[in-house]
Amino acid sequence: MKGNPQDKRTTPIKRLPHKESHDPLHFEELLTRSRVAHIAIDDGGPIILPVGCAPSQDRTEIFLHGSSASRLFSKLQAGVEACLTLTILEGLVLARSAFESSMHYKSLIAFGKARNLEGEEKIAALDLLVEHLLPGRLRELRPSTTQELKATALVAFPLDDYSIKVSSADPQDKPEDLDARIWAGVIPIHESFGQPQPAENLDPSIPVPDYIKSWKTK
Amino acid sequence: MKGNPQDKRTTPIKRLPHKESHDPLHFEELLTRSRVAHIAIDDGGPIILPVGCAPSQDRTEIFLHGSSASRLFSKLQAGVEACLTLTILEGLVLARSAFESSMHYKSLIAFGKARNLEGEEKIAALDLLVEHLLPGRLRELRPSTTQELKATALVAFPLDDYSIKVSSADPQDKPEDLDARIWAGVIPIHESFGQPQPAENLDPSIPVPDYIKSWKTK
Repeated sequence: MKGNPQDKRTTPIKRLPHKESHDPLHFEELLTRSRVAHIAIDDGGPIILPVGCAPSQDRTEIFLHGSSASRLFSKLQAGVEACLTLTILEGLVLARSAFESSMHYKSLIAFGKARNLEGEEKIAALDLLVEHLLPGRLRELRPSTTQELKATALVAFPLDDYSIKVSSADPQDKPEDLDARIWAGVIPIHESFGQPQPAENLDPSIPVPDYIKSWKTK
Repeated sequence: MKGNPQDKRTTPIKRLPHKESHDPLHFEELLTRSRVAHIAIDDGGPIILPVGCAPSQDRTEIFLHGSSASRLFSKLQAGVEACLTLTILEGLVLARSAFESSMHYKSLIAFGKARNLEGEEKIAALDLLVEHLLPGRLRELRPSTTQELKATALVAFPLDDYSIKVSSADPQDKPEDLDARIWAGVIPIHESFGQPQPAENLDPSIPVPDYIKSWKTK
């Protein structure tokens, strides 16, 4: 099945192989919760860009959004070798030793070359990006102008060669550390939305729309 | 003054130069709030690693923590060219057009070669990392064993060549879009700690310590 992470060639994880995950729910969660991807390319040395992202509907690609004037984005559009990561930090793991202390996280690393999007495909990807980042917003916005589309770069990064790591276990203390009278466990890290802050130039008679009130984080 | 970002050679930002920040408070916030850095090196193609991080006390370096068995960390220890980023996502910017919609963030990008830490310097950096990620915890933990220290890799990444970008403004709508009867503004994104989850093997008579209860996020 296309889009099913378990059917794909994945990069085997060399370090901490027990943390490798093939669970489609982890794949889905990483794609749906991530708003920003980090992408690295070579530019006379490695360089990382944090970029707004959204998964394609069939989950075979991640759409990345940038400026047509960005030199680094032009390199992505030209299809240079790149590495993409999604990282969700979910908690702090307090073990009875510094060595076993760690974090809960889900992360995805993918390798490949981005594909430049144009025409109808570009417009559809941009719509999808708006809906991913601001669910419900799209139908309120006017269509983008030709000039705006020209100034925007959209690429699709392949999810062919990737792997996922998930750390979600209790602290793994050594037996000899278990007698220490120290609290041990996990402190979850959550993300939440604050109160909507109206723009200074907003007509105060325009209320916060219901779709924004329904936004949830985890 | 050493450690003052404004005295350092910084990488000029080519895209969105108006978002470049030289404010020492932004520098300090990025360093103190970041728990994970993304670092890219070349490994027959660019590769990104998310790693636990903490700033040095004098703010001239960022300590990164990994496993001695990690091939990529060995490369960092050997001093290959690398790129480090810190990214804090702070909000969603809802403009009256898709084009002007964006995010609030603070990000730092640094270039350089890491320096391997050994001996007393390594132990001090590890202590600092524990205190950065788990403030107050260090004094409760036993010292790391020689074997644990051997299995742990610590490097210091220089903050000599870096730049900071901050996006924190209201939506920048075009004048002709201001008449649209659409809500516009910013939805802040916050991070918070959830209820401490005791380890399954924790003696239930051991309470959650006060230092954990005092942890704050922003």
